[in-house]
Amino acid sequence: MSSLSERPALIALDWGTTSLRAWLVAGDGAVLDQLARPLGILAVEGGDFAGAFAATAGAWRRGNPRLPALASGMIGSRQGWREAPYVACPASADAIARGLVTLDAGDGGTLAIVPGLSCEAHGVPDVMRGEETQILGALDVTVGRALFVLPGTHSKWALVEDGRVMRFASFMTGEVFAVLSRHSILGRLMEGEAIDAEAFARGLAAGMRTGTPGSLLHRVFAARTLGLFAREAPTALRGYLSGLLIGAEVAEGLAWSGGGAPTIIGEPALAALYARALTLAGVAAQIGPVDAALRGLRRIALAAGMAH
Amino acid sequence: MSSLSERPALIALDWGTTSLRAWLVAGDGAVLDQLARPLGILAVEGGDFAGAFAATAGAWRRGNPRLPALASGMIGSRQGWREAPYVACPASADAIARGLVTLDAGDGGTLAIVPGLSCEAHGVPDVMRGEETQILGALDVTVGRALFVLPGTHSKWALVEDGRVMRFASFMTGEVFAVLSRHSILGRLMEGEAIDAEAFARGLAAGMRTGTPGSLLHRVFAARTLGLFAREAPTALRGYLSGLLIGAEVAEGLAWSGGGAPTIIGEPALAALYARALTLAGVAAQIGPVDAALRGLRRIALAAGMAH
Repeated sequence: MSSLSERPALIALDWGTTSLRAWLVAGDGAVLDQLARPLGILAVEGGDFAGAFAATAGAWRRGNPRLPALASGMIGSRQGWREAPYVACPASADAIARGLVTLDAGDGGTLAIVPGLSCEAHGVPDVMRGEETQILGALDVTVGRALFVLPGTHSKWALVEDGRVMRFASFMTGEVFAVLSRHSILGRLMEGEAIDAEAFARGLAAGMRTGTPGSLLHRVFAARTLGLFAREAPTALRGYLSGLLIGAEVAEGLAWSGGGAPTIIGEPALAALYARALTLAGVAAQIGPVDAALRGLRRIALAAGMAH
Repeated sequence: MSSLSERPALIALDWGTTSLRAWLVAGDGAVLDQLARPLGILAVEGGDFAGAFAATAGAWRRGNPRLPALASGMIGSRQGWREAPYVACPASADAIARGLVTLDAGDGGTLAIVPGLSCEAHGVPDVMRGEETQILGALDVTVGRALFVLPGTHSKWALVEDGRVMRFASFMTGEVFAVLSRHSILGRLMEGEAIDAEAFARGLAAGMRTGTPGSLLHRVFAARTLGLFAREAPTALRGYLSGLLIGAEVAEGLAWSGGGAPTIIGEPALAALYARALTLAGVAAQIGPVDAALRGLRRIALAAGMAH
């Protein structure tokens, strides 16, 4: 007879735009098996999500179709397998669990999809999908206030109070960096793909600087003029622009949050850049767990009574 | 014997990245002939600027190789015919005239090229090339303070005192709008190429709004979420984003300038959008002369003693 830590209790999937990670988890949270597949929702041909699911988790559920499966991320978007409507903030793990959308996975079992969150400020909605699960996975206190930063294509800053996501704000930092580097005049003088550490620091300082003109529409032009005047080397301009944008995001995020020491959740190299930015801003940041998505999926599964 | 208003005194060229406009001007400023050619510096094959010049102004100078010719714009950049080094602000018409670079035009005569301007703020240089000529052309007072806005791919705000360009700031508004619309997620929900007037006004208000998060990295995301929540129609999203960016530029530009009623110099449809933005900001703007480049070229030619 197998012990609790050997018996599969949950299939957990972090199913995003470009990648799919999956874990087979025991009742006590032990990871029994794990997989990563380049089967993000944009790579699933003809909308055959059932096929992609079977190719990933099929072996785990063969002979055990009632093994619960839970997925978070863009798989629950309009472009995914099925839309899981946004849950409005403030939102607790229980509220998110109540918003799960369950579908027939095509293998004799079901798949539950975690809803994204929405909030509203100044008459404009904001959304996240996937990050709510990572936040719940990194949240180690259910009392008091916690601030999270999730850097990426569309970075999220989120404020949690007493276990509920109260409000959050998106910053298109990663995508703006990508399109300006690839498609605007700012990329013309850039050489190499590396982020020069010293130029990144100079960019951070420029991005955090107060005073007019404060608009990024003005400030990003420095990534051209500093190159034109040979004050930054061609190989340094990419790091300068990255620092400028991350610095602007961090300064704004801290102002928006009203202070606090954020926990950074994200890919380690990017998290390290944000930690540098926060240090420069005089804020002590900590790096969250690398398996925040898995932890959050398990937490939501427990809240939904899917796993025990 | 021909009168002063019939005798050619100057060939003036506004020679930019994508287009070339040329005028044959009499001593009293009367336009005797004019041409527009799709021979911007990016379209001149093999760097044959002499050929492009001959194809444009050749007939005007045939038999009269000593007729002065003066060009402003990107033709004086590193990618142009010959680099005309930037003149540092504060810069008067006389200082700009002293910075002219004269080259052999290959037709027996010469061509003088107007230098761009540079200025520096917070350790970062800023540059313009072509706009200095338009500013001088629109400047109808040589005493006191004047504020100019030149909207475009890289908009310029410039402060002039007693006939000297004191300082200026660039905003990458037009290019950021183009790359976000074409290459980012913000373009995905957009339909049509028109700028919806009402959505533009809503975008303006959002772009000018104070309060956190103020960063455009956050605010531009509204051009996606308002579409996701069906609060802006797909055909309205382009206008909303345009308004958001122009609103942000105008709010920052006014703060940077320290106030004043700007003169807008630019393509009429774009100038009208900026006039709406300035009106919403409570500022009385005026539209500058449509032939500002020609007027400025003539003014610089006079200052340089090239035309009488």
